[in-house]
Amino acid sequence: MEMPKLFIPGPTEVPDEVRLAMAQPVIGHRTKDMTELYGGIVEKLQKLFNTNHYVMVITSSGTGVMEGTVRNLVNRTVLHGACGAFGKRWYQISQANGKEADLVWADWGKAVKPDMIAEKIVKGKYELVAVTHNETSTGVRNPTDEIAKIAHENDALVAIDAVSSLGGDMIDVNKYDVVVSSSQKAFALPPGLAFAIVSEAAMEKTKSVEGRGYYFDFVTLLKRYEKNKQHPTTPAVSLLYALDVQLDRMLKEGMQARYERHVKMMKIVQEWAKKRGFALFAEEGYRSVTVTTVENTLGISVKELNDELVKRGMRISNGYGDLKEKTFRIAHMGELTPADIRGLLGEIDEILEAKGVY
Amino acid sequence: MEMPKLFIPGPTEVPDEVRLAMAQPVIGHRTKDMTELYGGIVEKLQKLFNTNHYVMVITSSGTGVMEGTVRNLVNRTVLHGACGAFGKRWYQISQANGKEADLVWADWGKAVKPDMIAEKIVKGKYELVAVTHNETSTGVRNPTDEIAKIAHENDALVAIDAVSSLGGDMIDVNKYDVVVSSSQKAFALPPGLAFAIVSEAAMEKTKSVEGRGYYFDFVTLLKRYEKNKQHPTTPAVSLLYALDVQLDRMLKEGMQARYERHVKMMKIVQEWAKKRGFALFAEEGYRSVTVTTVENTLGISVKELNDELVKRGMRISNGYGDLKEKTFRIAHMGELTPADIRGLLGEIDEILEAKGVY
Repeated sequence: MEMPKLFIPGPTEVPDEVRLAMAQPVIGHRTKDMTELYGGIVEKLQKLFNTNHYVMVITSSGTGVMEGTVRNLVNRTVLHGACGAFGKRWYQISQANGKEADLVWADWGKAVKPDMIAEKIVKGKYELVAVTHNETSTGVRNPTDEIAKIAHENDALVAIDAVSSLGGDMIDVNKYDVVVSSSQKAFALPPGLAFAIVSEAAMEKTKSVEGRGYYFDFVTLLKRYEKNKQHPTTPAVSLLYALDVQLDRMLKEGMQARYERHVKMMKIVQEWAKKRGFALFAEEGYRSVTVTTVENTLGISVKELNDELVKRGMRISNGYGDLKEKTFRIAHMGELTPADIRGLLGEIDEILEAKGVY
Repeated sequence: MEMPKLFIPGPTEVPDEVRLAMAQPVIGHRTKDMTELYGGIVEKLQKLFNTNHYVMVITSSGTGVMEGTVRNLVNRTVLHGACGAFGKRWYQISQANGKEADLVWADWGKAVKPDMIAEKIVKGKYELVAVTHNETSTGVRNPTDEIAKIAHENDALVAIDAVSSLGGDMIDVNKYDVVVSSSQKAFALPPGLAFAIVSEAAMEKTKSVEGRGYYFDFVTLLKRYEKNKQHPTTPAVSLLYALDVQLDRMLKEGMQARYERHVKMMKIVQEWAKKRGFALFAEEGYRSVTVTTVENTLGISVKELNDELVKRGMRISNGYGDLKEKTFRIAHMGELTPADIRGLLGEIDEILEAKGVY
């Protein structure tokens, strides 16, 4: 199997130390060691994100917890703000769970603006506003702080999908009722764990919600955690080992420094793209700190570029779905460094120059 | 952290080779390598269990797929057959998902008999009969083949929870509409992956079921698999590496030999218990091949025994819930060998003899 260095918006490169942590023998999930491990993980996450909100780590992809969020907080009505494939998926998930879901849609490459939400929302109508923070398919970063304010003013809870931003971008999780994320993006971990950071108001709301289910039920999860800092079901122990090691690394770097590193990498990619004559796909002012979507204005073959990059031990992402070949995506998240990014861009330049693109 | 050898009914001992496989770099989940990896895994599982049924590997605990099974196959009515904590949980999961669930309950240590199901079932009334195959909390193995026959005769689909038996016990998965299992028991893998083995009839039924949700939706999973042998969401890649290696090992041993090894270990534990004056908790004729629940008729302190065993690098399980101290459980599943079991029992004997128990 080829295992190129990943510059894709998840999974991302995982440090050796973190991958090796997974190789340790598995411990029982009903032991004191598990209580210490999982209790410590929750505390570290709260410290990293400077919050007293409830933190739940669940064995699933981020999508699972996006579904769980809707099931936990919505009896009937939810308003979705979406601007790409993953925002749309969340909307479809609500429908698949029998909720009355309305959609505020911003076109591909555009952001969901606060006034779009303000226009659609009706005081007391929606139980939840669910918005993408960082749209992985387009590289758009939505102004969710302002949207959260509007939601709260209209008696709705607010949840954001920060799957591809939390741990890289700077997010004040205390402004939201649920922040959903997962392990394989800016956390630089293998996939398999998802996070829910849940407010007191959200936990209060769950009490009046019927049919929350079991596996993603926040009440069941919290009850077991408060008993002895364990899970109601068997968690992915090996992935928790990795998370624990990685959280120490992230705390050591510090969230502010981590954010600044991500901003620096973003700037390097954006400047490179402009300089080479590519356009940036995401609307100005709303560009992601963790992934840049480059518009293929030079008409290169993205597939050929990526095949050549893989030969050189690196992989970027083609555009998502219908955006394939029309765009390509360079992720600059997790443990990647400005040097990694400069190295990648140098290779891309060499390949495209050889093809006479510029 | 203490990492004793596990003789508990999950998680179980994971071979070094399998744990080390997880330390490999993570690959993208939308690559050809993933298609090969996951496609290969599904084929190996079908080969191991001698089936053409659909096989889905999902990132979650077994509980997640138990919930998914009910959501996929039940619009309204389900009959549960339960004889312990996990059977009861499945029944509660159905209720938590708004289904009309009826329960056939066999007391702790007893099995769910075919005539109990036959008595309760009404032709055409239940869409699904959901029964525990191997009840981890009591060490009871239910006669699910006969129960499946009764369910089918009464126009119900049948699903079994084989979380703690599949891959150790011999199960003809073709007799069932859904077989649920998970990675950390007789498969001897780290926790985090769950399996659904699904019949054509079950897939047909999903078409008429509303509100199946998304993450555990068999239709969504199968659609993506049939497209390019990938997952609709990001799977736990590192755990798939481990599964792939372990499936090669399991195929090399062969399912029949694996089953016989489990039976041999079971007999060693049962004979040891009787010889020492302990009773067996599970009803005769319905005893699990993968975990033996010993009734603490000698009145030992199970906690003290286990603490001493942990010091010696081994761990067994106390009784489950209210059965704590009244019973203890010795798992003989996964990669454990008769020699491992004899070694454990020798240590237990030395500890109990020193305490003057016998």
